[in-house]
Amino acid sequence: GFARLDLQRVERTGDPEVVFGRGKTPSQVVAALRALHEAHPEGAVLATRLDDDAVALVRAELPDADLDEVGRTAVLGKPRPPHGRVAVVGAGTADLPVVRECVTTVSVFGAEPDMVLDVGVAGLHRLLAQRDRIDSADAVVAVAGMEAALPSVIGGLTGAPLIAVPTSIGYGWHLDGLTAWLATLNSCAPGVLTVNVDNGFGAGVAAARIARRSR
Amino acid sequence: GFARLDLQRVERTGDPEVVFGRGKTPSQVVAALRALHEAHPEGAVLATRLDDDAVALVRAELPDADLDEVGRTAVLGKPRPPHGRVAVVGAGTADLPVVRECVTTVSVFGAEPDMVLDVGVAGLHRLLAQRDRIDSADAVVAVAGMEAALPSVIGGLTGAPLIAVPTSIGYGWHLDGLTAWLATLNSCAPGVLTVNVDNGFGAGVAAARIARRSR
Amino acid sequence: GFARLDLQRVERTGDPEVVFGRGKTPSQVVAALRALHEAHPEGAVLATRLDDDAVALVRAELPDADLDEVGRTAVLGKPRPPHGRVAVVGAGTADLPVVRECVTTVSVFGAEPDMVLDVGVAGLHRLLAQRDRIDSADAVVAVAGMEAALPSVIGGLTGAPLIAVPTSIGYGWHLDGLTAWLATLNSCAPGVLTVNVDNGFGAGVAAARIARRSR
Amino acid sequence: GFARLDLQRVERTGDPEVVFGRGKTPSQVVAALRALHEAHPEGAVLATRLDDDAVALVRAELPDADLDEVGRTAVLGKPRPPHGRVAVVGAGTADLPVVRECVTTVSVFGAEPDMVLDVGVAGLHRLLAQRDRIDSADAVVAVAGMEAALPSVIGGLTGAPLIAVPTSIGYGWHLDGLTAWLATLNSCAPGVLTVNVDNGFGAGVAAARIARRSR
Amino acid sequence: GFARLDLQRVERTGDPEVVFGRGKTPSQVVAALRALHEAHPEGAVLATRLDDDAVALVRAELPDADLDEVGRTAVLGKPRPPHGRVAVVGAGTADLPVVRECVTTVSVFGAEPDMVLDVGVAGLHRLLAQRDRIDSADAVVAVAGMEAALPSVIGGLTGAPLIAVPTSIGYGWHLDGLTAWLATLNSCAPGVLTVNVDNGFGAGVAAARIARRSR
Amino acid sequence: GFARLDLQRVERTGDPEVVFGRGKTPSQVVAALRALHEAHPEGAVLATRLDDDAVALVRAELPDADLDEVGRTAVLGKPRPPHGRVAVVGAGTADLPVVRECVTTVSVFGAEPDMVLDVGVAGLHRLLAQRDRIDSADAVVAVAGMEAALPSVIGGLTGAPLIAVPTSIGYGWHLDGLTAWLATLNSCAPGVLTVNVDNGFGAGVAAARIARRSR
Amino acid sequence: GFARLDLQRVERTGDPEVVFGRGKTPSQVVAALRALHEAHPEGAVLATRLDDDAVALVRAELPDADLDEVGRTAVLGKPRPPHGRVAVVGAGTADLPVVRECVTTVSVFGAEPDMVLDVGVAGLHRLLAQRDRIDSADAVVAVAGMEAALPSVIGGLTGAPLIAVPTSIGYGWHLDGLTAWLATLNSCAPGVLTVNVDNGFGAGVAAARIARRSR
Amino acid sequence: GFARLDLQRVERTGDPEVVFGRGKTPSQVVAALRALHEAHPEGAVLATRLDDDAVALVRAELPDADLDEVGRTAVLGKPRPPHGRVAVVGAGTADLPVVRECVTTVSVFGAEPDMVLDVGVAGLHRLLAQRDRIDSADAVVAVAGMEAALPSVIGGLTGAPLIAVPTSIGYGWHLDGLTAWLATLNSCAPGVLTVNVDNGFGAGVAAARIARRSR
Ligand SMILES: Nc1ncnc2c1ncn2[C@@H]1O[C@H](COP(=O)(O)O)[C@@H](O)[C@H]1O
Ligand SMILES: Nc1ncnc2c1ncn2[C@@H]1O[C@H](COP(=O)(O)O)[C@@H](O)[C@H]1O
Ligand SMILES: Nc1ncnc2c1ncn2[C@@H]1O[C@H](COP(=O)(O)O)[C@@H](O)[C@H]1O
Ligand SMILES: Nc1ncnc2c1ncn2[C@@H]1O[C@H](COP(=O)(O)O)[C@@H](O)[C@H]1O
Ligand SMILES: [Mg+2]
Ligand SMILES: [Mg+2]
Ligand SMILES: [Mg+2]
Ligand SMILES: [Mg+2]
Ligand SMILES: [Mg+2]
Ligand SMILES: [Mg+2]
Ligand SMILES: [Mg+2]
Ligand SMILES: [Mg+2]
Repeated sequence: GFARLDLQRVERTGDPEVVFGRGKTPSQVVAALRALHEAHPEGAVLATRLDDDAVALVRAELPDADLDEVGRTAVLGKPRPPHGRVAVVGAGTADLPVVRECVTTVSVFGAEPDMVLDVGVAGLHRLLAQRDRIDSADAVVAVAGMEAALPSVIGGLTGAPLIAVPTSIGYGWHLDGLTAWLATLNSCAPGVLTVNVDNGFGAGVAAARIARRSR
Repeated sequence: GFARLDLQRVERTGDPEVVFGRGKTPSQVVAALRALHEAHPEGAVLATRLDDDAVALVRAELPDADLDEVGRTAVLGKPRPPHGRVAVVGAGTADLPVVRECVTTVSVFGAEPDMVLDVGVAGLHRLLAQRDRIDSADAVVAVAGMEAALPSVIGGLTGAPLIAVPTSIGYGWHLDGLTAWLATLNSCAPGVLTVNVDNGFGAGVAAARIARRSR
Repeated sequence: GFARLDLQRVERTGDPEVVFGRGKTPSQVVAALRALHEAHPEGAVLATRLDDDAVALVRAELPDADLDEVGRTAVLGKPRPPHGRVAVVGAGTADLPVVRECVTTVSVFGAEPDMVLDVGVAGLHRLLAQRDRIDSADAVVAVAGMEAALPSVIGGLTGAPLIAVPTSIGYGWHLDGLTAWLATLNSCAPGVLTVNVDNGFGAGVAAARIARRSR
Repeated sequence: GFARLDLQRVERTGDPEVVFGRGKTPSQVVAALRALHEAHPEGAVLATRLDDDAVALVRAELPDADLDEVGRTAVLGKPRPPHGRVAVVGAGTADLPVVRECVTTVSVFGAEPDMVLDVGVAGLHRLLAQRDRIDSADAVVAVAGMEAALPSVIGGLTGAPLIAVPTSIGYGWHLDGLTAWLATLNSCAPGVLTVNVDNGFGAGVAAARIARRSR
Repeated sequence: GFARLDLQRVERTGDPEVVFGRGKTPSQVVAALRALHEAHPEGAVLATRLDDDAVALVRAELPDADLDEVGRTAVLGKPRPPHGRVAVVGAGTADLPVVRECVTTVSVFGAEPDMVLDVGVAGLHRLLAQRDRIDSADAVVAVAGMEAALPSVIGGLTGAPLIAVPTSIGYGWHLDGLTAWLATLNSCAPGVLTVNVDNGFGAGVAAARIARRSR
Repeated sequence: GFARLDLQRVERTGDPEVVFGRGKTPSQVVAALRALHEAHPEGAVLATRLDDDAVALVRAELPDADLDEVGRTAVLGKPRPPHGRVAVVGAGTADLPVVRECVTTVSVFGAEPDMVLDVGVAGLHRLLAQRDRIDSADAVVAVAGMEAALPSVIGGLTGAPLIAVPTSIGYGWHLDGLTAWLATLNSCAPGVLTVNVDNGFGAGVAAARIARRSR
Repeated sequence: GFARLDLQRVERTGDPEVVFGRGKTPSQVVAALRALHEAHPEGAVLATRLDDDAVALVRAELPDADLDEVGRTAVLGKPRPPHGRVAVVGAGTADLPVVRECVTTVSVFGAEPDMVLDVGVAGLHRLLAQRDRIDSADAVVAVAGMEAALPSVIGGLTGAPLIAVPTSIGYGWHLDGLTAWLATLNSCAPGVLTVNVDNGFGAGVAAARIARRSR
Repeated sequence: GFARLDLQRVERTGDPEVVFGRGKTPSQVVAALRALHEAHPEGAVLATRLDDDAVALVRAELPDADLDEVGRTAVLGKPRPPHGRVAVVGAGTADLPVVRECVTTVSVFGAEPDMVLDVGVAGLHRLLAQRDRIDSADAVVAVAGMEAALPSVIGGLTGAPLIAVPTSIGYGWHLDGLTAWLATLNSCAPGVLTVNVDNGFGAGVAAARIARRSR
């Protein structure tokens, strides 16, 4: 086969391997999803970063798969019952694909996602109106591009575990998200965690693991 | 002499030349201040970025000079009567030297400075309490380090001309202020202007020129 | 809807929200322009960074819109009567799209734009011939790529509020405009303000706000 | 006063403000610690990044404070009873100051720290010997400099929430920790979270918040 | 001709020149391979970085050539009998093209390649199972992208000469392989050598030269 | 000896080796100057980048040496009669050390230096007044820091061979001269040549070689 | 018209303006060439960086133009009789387009180009064989990519004025020519001048100006 | 103890652990050297990067240690009999400390070092005179700063395994050795290996391992 799947990962870490779609042919994606589903029939398995061709082939060959064309994900099998809630908060409309990748990942990794959209800091009232919903979550993911001020503002409003996802969204010279990335790593709010630019998947894995262990 | 002062600058731009203290000996600073004051006796002249030795010599030789040891400035002569008000807003206590350099510059360049301190976004209530004072100014300068979220939040609260000053303040790897700089240039609030890192002087010049022309 | 428009922005900042065309489908652009125009019938609303498809659909569906195919903008509604004049000065012919985006923005945000073209410093006589027109403006925007020497030269000729727009124009290795950007932030003329690379829109918002408050 | 303490932070986030020692005079550190302790007598308050002078003055003026000269921290008051355990794992001996800053923070923020030292990947047997202790923790912090391979290896061995702290430790050209930072953000293990270079404090805050909410 | 081949290189360095396919037309590649083969009929000559068109023309015009469409190489002539063994170890499936370019180069340059695939550190058991095969080689090449932890782990397991090849494989912001490159240059294992990103060819040349001189 | 002087350089290139003072002890500088002077008694030999200790020892041990404490150079022996004139133009007073290093080098390498100071572009009249002197030179060196606009403006005024020396002078974040360097390499005036930041020596060597070959 | 040609440039600098083809439509290129030719009928005018469409239209509409499809240039009119010789030395075959752009420019700007190809330092004998031809030139241009060692080696062999052109040619991660650029600016040979990456035009202008003034 | 020595490393890799002096107190260095010597009495153990205080204490407490104050190393015990020869070639006098660190390391790791100094490419005859000595070595280390042309020139003269050590030596802006580093990684000679900037130790380990396995 084209790859050696790590089928023991679920024993070591509690979660099966995931299919990373970029750089794989559509039939490789389908084959990997199928193999993982067979190895882990009791839960859901996930494929991310699917291009249009991969989405089309998954739809044709795996009709039971749950496809998200905005978040570019496919899920095969039924996610385990969730424990804990993750607020996934997006600053602007352009951050939606990253938010959706995160939401799906949270669900596959065993927690309940709660999506809060378009609450960027240039219109603070929108964020303040959602404050309680965010503060009561078991983990918070804050997705933001440009100058990525949102995680800092949220970090001042809640003590829930908080993961920032910088995105590569910007109007001009932003170095493909470096600006947002540097911002999240230099947040003036204590305890803000971060992942790589646009990595909704990584944030979702971590947030779900935090939430599903919460009391 | 060690330098050729540009004594016609006031005709071309409305303001006399300024003494940049870094890289000058204390006696050069004193000589330059004196020469500028003689050429422009009707108003105030300014020296910036003074080290301890320069401050000491200015105190000894120019007893009429107004010294600010935090902002590292000296002013000789009486500023012209101010027109217009500039709100100079600082995010944290560590930004104070930059705020003070800006405040003094605003005053020398002909506007009234209004200092608002320690209103960083990790405790939003502090900023919201000062909103009217900021919104009613003729120009606003927002001084902030780390991820520099403050200018974006202010830019969503007012349509007054707004200048961000990124500062080189940070807790870890922030590239000597590049993080804050990139943030201000990528603000999600429209029309945020910026100057170089820690450049309270440049922001003060621009803000005063805007305020003193306002109706 | 695909986005939550910030219809209260005009109360907070004096200007309505703007449609940023990049990353939106043509029909999203048209829908957003229409919604903003309905919410703000008394003045003009703006869309920027339109691609060819968006221009075509705006032309077909919003025949009253004012389209600029060089500056990639559309304006719906009649701009309020201007107050104050903004000189928008461009260094080279390749800077024209950024100049035009700025000019349109100035007009929508309530000031009168005055366009001065092709006055780069490699042929100084061209700039010196326009000196009075620039010096008498209420605000100046200087658009320049490559080494971006123009803002510094203008900053030595006038004390009007001055905003530099670095552009991503260059002959060789210029880091997508970083060269010009660093140059404007390190100008030897005091008080030069800057915005992000190619951000004629941001400069136009700020310049109009300065000019329309001027006496 | 020199600073406006955010005494309501404990209500908003569950934890009091912390004194960041860098850039403060020893007497400012002492005054801030004292004020925070008075406002929060029921628990512990923390000061970080103390230089030698600050340590000396804290020792003289606040004899009850708990000082760590390696981690550069001071704690005043008794930490609340811990809930949950955080494994703080260090790759090399040079990472010790960051490990200690993290350990103290974990304790002040309400969880039990469990320190595992000198288990860098160039001698894998040392890490494998500690595997169960790490896997059974409620949160894991992995502190590593140079190429920062440790978090990836740990991420393959456990599904516990995992925070990487890149450190500025290296033998040659490592860009003050950028190398380690980039490594942690590009970990091949899913769900690795990160903080800024050398930010043991930030990792400790986040890890404690995760652990103290765990079941 | 379009190029001046360095036909004396074999006398100076022991190996003939190699055809670098990028930037050459298919017929230039064929002509160069033919000319080198005629000048060095006793051994094998190599072309690297062939695009699809070059592969097609080589197949048509040089039917004796040995083509590798994954590694993008062509070999004409019979490699000399190998001396010494080079373990070429790949971290993930996406690193395969670089591994294959290296394997072919090792063979053309006179050593025996031994390919070990998909042994990334997120599943350590896979690498530990291959330890003896790696440790007994005369030289080791470790190919890895993302955070490139593999060379460090191998460097702790063997004292064989070890060359790391960072690859441009990554999930998010990794600066086209800079992350992996910095990692290999900062390895905590002593004596790790490196080549440029994705440069399987360079590593293969060096490893073969080491192995073929070994006792 | 501590170094192997290249005494045949004068035959190959027309000029003797030069003593680069940085990183040498004062007695090494004196010994090298003396050895070069003995090998080349007919002309002048040069030492650059001397620190205070080296200047003192040269003064004590080589009383015939010509010392420049601003440019940090020493010259031993009489420069050959000059051919051709080099205009060395400095933008600001802080560029003086670089200007002086260049002027001395021009003289030692066989041309006549003509120093023009403090003609930065923020006060254009000063430069325009020196135009003929610059245009009639056989080579021009333009020394400028900050945004380094001067070489472009000069390049529009003359067709004489033109070398830009970016300097590490700036008010804020300028990346130790990278800003000026990028500016000179992206000049909008055709044919601007450049050397490394602060390298007055390199520009002087090249300019003298151009001028002394001119008709 | 689309641009304001600087027809007085020939009086100020001795050479007419040049048409930079990038970013211009084919008909704009043709129009500009024609206009410059009419204004300067006595000599040659030049267009650079022509794409395939521009080449085709120039061929159709300006049959007298001299076209170089490798160097991407067009020349209209007869170059003035040359004075002085410029050796244009290329390291590898991939540097040919830059060499050819330089050669044509030298000719249009009034000197005689002398092309020396494929003499990279990995086969030194080739360069040493051309030493006299290079040393006797009035100016030397050294074009090299990758690590750009060629200019340093040439700079040790001759005292002729020497301009390095770093090129964007490389095998792996070379940052679009930054590697070569940094190398030329840090040459260990004194007096090496440089231009931007791939800027054969700029080097040709400068070299011709040096050569045509030589005795 | 302050550190956990990896006493099994000699079994895994054939060589004992090494004391890295930077960041250790003098008494820690002495203690570590002593402990390693006791664990490995049959051979030599090494400490690198010793500051003046560490050198003094080693001299006082370990009189049998072999100290090199230029290379900043100490050796305790007698190196095993060497097998194979490593040519350690230095470009300039300023590279000497790195050359010496490498030479000592080669000896401790079991091969015979052969030092060739001051053969930079600006005076090629010096290098060509040493060609046979370099070509006949079992491994070659080429140490060079500035533009680091030396490894490429050597790589064209020999097929011996070749390791480049870029150094942080330069005259101006060279980014602390990044220039040399990029150069070595982009060498036009095939098979050049590299280590981190100034890492004479790493190159010495690798070169000795190559040489001692050679026939
Ligand atoms: N969107 C994503 N971003 C980052 N990592 C991912 C993503 N999707 C999957 N992965 C990781 O990629 C691994 C599979 O990689 P591969 O073997 O190349 O398919 C999974 O086990 C995950 O750790
Ligand atoms: N050309 C432009 N450059 C930068 N910002 C813009 C531009 N055009 C619009 N904007 C901003 O983008 C906002 C709308 O963003 P969005 O919600 O994504 O449509 C507007 O309110 C403006 O602040
Ligand atoms: N200020 C300077 N900047 C750059 N290169 C210099 C300078 N001064 C001397 N050099 C060069 O350094 C060489 C001597 O280097 P060294 O052998 O280290 O003394 C001279 O031959 C010059 O090529
Ligand atoms: N290949 C080139 N590289 C850099 N600059 C060039 C090149 N060709 C032309 N130029 C410059 O570009 C100017 C014309 O620019 P434009 O007005 O945009 O056509 C000329 O006068 C030259 O100074
Ligand atoms: Mg929105
Ligand atoms: Mg505060
Ligand atoms: Mg033009
Ligand atoms: Mg250790
Ligand atoms: Mg895999
Ligand atoms: Mg001056
Ligand atoms: Mg060739
Ligand atoms: Mg030397």
